[in-house]
Amino acid sequence: MAVFLSSPVKPTIHLTVFFNPNPKKPIFKCSCSLPTVTITEPEPVFTSVRTFAPATVANLGPGFDFLGCAVDGLGDYVSLRVDPGVHPGEISISEIIGPSKLSKNPLWNCAGIAAIDAMKRLGIRSVGLSLSLEKGLPLGSGLGSSAASAAAAAVAVNEMFGKKLNQDELVLAGLESEAKVSGYHADNIAPAIMGGFVLIRSYDPLELMRLNFPEEKKLFFVLVSPEFEAPTKKMRAALPAEVGMPHHVWNCSQAGALVASVLQGDPVGLGKALSSDKIVEPKRAPLIPGMEGVKKAAIEAGAFGCTISGAGPTAVAVVDNEEKGKVIGEKMVEAFWKEGNLKAAAVVKSLDRVGARLVGSVRK
Amino acid sequence: MAVFLSSPVKPTIHLTVFFNPNPKKPIFKCSCSLPTVTITEPEPVFTSVRTFAPATVANLGPGFDFLGCAVDGLGDYVSLRVDPGVHPGEISISEIIGPSKLSKNPLWNCAGIAAIDAMKRLGIRSVGLSLSLEKGLPLGSGLGSSAASAAAAAVAVNEMFGKKLNQDELVLAGLESEAKVSGYHADNIAPAIMGGFVLIRSYDPLELMRLNFPEEKKLFFVLVSPEFEAPTKKMRAALPAEVGMPHHVWNCSQAGALVASVLQGDPVGLGKALSSDKIVEPKRAPLIPGMEGVKKAAIEAGAFGCTISGAGPTAVAVVDNEEKGKVIGEKMVEAFWKEGNLKAAAVVKSLDRVGARLVGSVRK
Repeated sequence: MAVFLSSPVKPTIHLTVFFNPNPKKPIFKCSCSLPTVTITEPEPVFTSVRTFAPATVANLGPGFDFLGCAVDGLGDYVSLRVDPGVHPGEISISEIIGPSKLSKNPLWNCAGIAAIDAMKRLGIRSVGLSLSLEKGLPLGSGLGSSAASAAAAAVAVNEMFGKKLNQDELVLAGLESEAKVSGYHADNIAPAIMGGFVLIRSYDPLELMRLNFPEEKKLFFVLVSPEFEAPTKKMRAALPAEVGMPHHVWNCSQAGALVASVLQGDPVGLGKALSSDKIVEPKRAPLIPGMEGVKKAAIEAGAFGCTISGAGPTAVAVVDNEEKGKVIGEKMVEAFWKEGNLKAAAVVKSLDRVGARLVGSVRK
Repeated sequence: MAVFLSSPVKPTIHLTVFFNPNPKKPIFKCSCSLPTVTITEPEPVFTSVRTFAPATVANLGPGFDFLGCAVDGLGDYVSLRVDPGVHPGEISISEIIGPSKLSKNPLWNCAGIAAIDAMKRLGIRSVGLSLSLEKGLPLGSGLGSSAASAAAAAVAVNEMFGKKLNQDELVLAGLESEAKVSGYHADNIAPAIMGGFVLIRSYDPLELMRLNFPEEKKLFFVLVSPEFEAPTKKMRAALPAEVGMPHHVWNCSQAGALVASVLQGDPVGLGKALSSDKIVEPKRAPLIPGMEGVKKAAIEAGAFGCTISGAGPTAVAVVDNEEKGKVIGEKMVEAFWKEGNLKAAAVVKSLDRVGARLVGSVRK
């Protein structure tokens, strides 16, 4: 265990004023006593770890900007190892498997930024780390790609050093990364780390509410991603600056109904609430070719509700049966082609209730 | 049982155009066949009934206009009796115990309007009724006074004729009354009829969600009513027409947190959400002298949260202990006097989980 001497508490300062023959030039004598405090830096528990963080669906209709959930079986992997070749206290990105346009500079990479923040929070100064990122999620798809990388990285660092950080600290490390990529929004990073549905109650201080969808109830997400780029910034610019009072009250009530449906394990109510946004979706849907037709096709095929996932272009529909979800997915793909002239691919996934986790490790 | 012949389904109409020697003046011959349908009118089960409906707290902070709850032990009573002296199918208000300014004309009285609507829904045409209203709630206090009268009356009519109307129909009967008094808002009338917390999901069609606060958890409301008139219309005029996007997102998230706190039985979280409104309360509180100081005093005395009840002027604070509630109430009364120069009275009440109900009856 590395040990440092530091002074995180205020030093006691005694100021003594002596008799002064020249009153215009006072003499002060300072006798400072700096209490020494021992700060311990955690040592790595493993030589290497491998973590996974799931895809997330944020902006859940009327849950815009404060409610998100994690979906199972889609996500990013991070492998992290102690690397004597890396400067102590620093991190290096050795490899990125997936999109070539991602930077290997850890200061410009979602995983890198979150890992550095987690290391800072742990006070890591003696160990250098090497990180490999395996992207399972496409960029700019509306499935929380950057959050998945950040979550996997923050959790990898935390696991490496014995899980000293709590969930809120991990979310804050991920938020540091999200802030640089898409804005200071926790509705992807929080469920990516915590799993399930998470309500962001406040940022200052960070307050998160885990909303448990009952274990015994089934919920499936039909995720249909078209070949279309919907940059987060453009989608954000489409938002209205002001909301009329009736629409505000409507969306608030639907947000309440959405939360109640989650906690009561009611996929039908959840779908209905998901479909009910009168503020954001009406502005964004026209920017994604075919989206309105895709939503209609999903509902006609039996989905309980449908909206844009995150800032799009992925469309998300909900249902309580996997097979039915596949049929709905096919109809949505057809609609993207027919109404938007876009190729699209569908997957049906269940709710991820775990969040970012260790999937492999080599002990020291 | 009285039996009527009526035609609630569309009649079949056959239009026949005959040869017409004068084409400018067409001849139509109409042969209408009206199908006869038997409609049964329920008979009274009792000669008289007495009902109670509780006070309600609406506009629960960020739950503005869509969330309300019922409070135990405060409310209005309605006594209803079959009266051969009243024209069949009609209702007469025989007595109002309480504020003198209420009209005895049933068309201009909350209880009367709701009772008439309930009678219409039941198809009562053969029996005349006489209604006595006992006001337990002051008018314009923000405690759902008009809704309590309407709820007690609608339920009294329904009980009288064997409970043929369901909860939604009773709420609709009450809404008919609310619409004429304070606007088409169900956040008082729905909890007054159903008890507990009720979320108004939509009006067209009416969709209500009962939010169960767990039975084993305690919740008390400290209700402090100052001697001050805050007319609903004036308070409604104080609302902003538009809401900035950040405030909209904030209030939506707090509405979600409020709903989650109710369902999870978390009075601390509930209080916090109650206190968090950034849209309505900041506009209305300055119109009630001392309200801001009262809220501060409530929180300082240990309340989990505090806001304006309904459109005011009553202040409502929440806590999980009755004795603590009484102390908080005293501090709030003090603050109304000190900060607003208003006399006020405090009561501490628990959640009413039942809603409007029969409290007495005389069988035929």
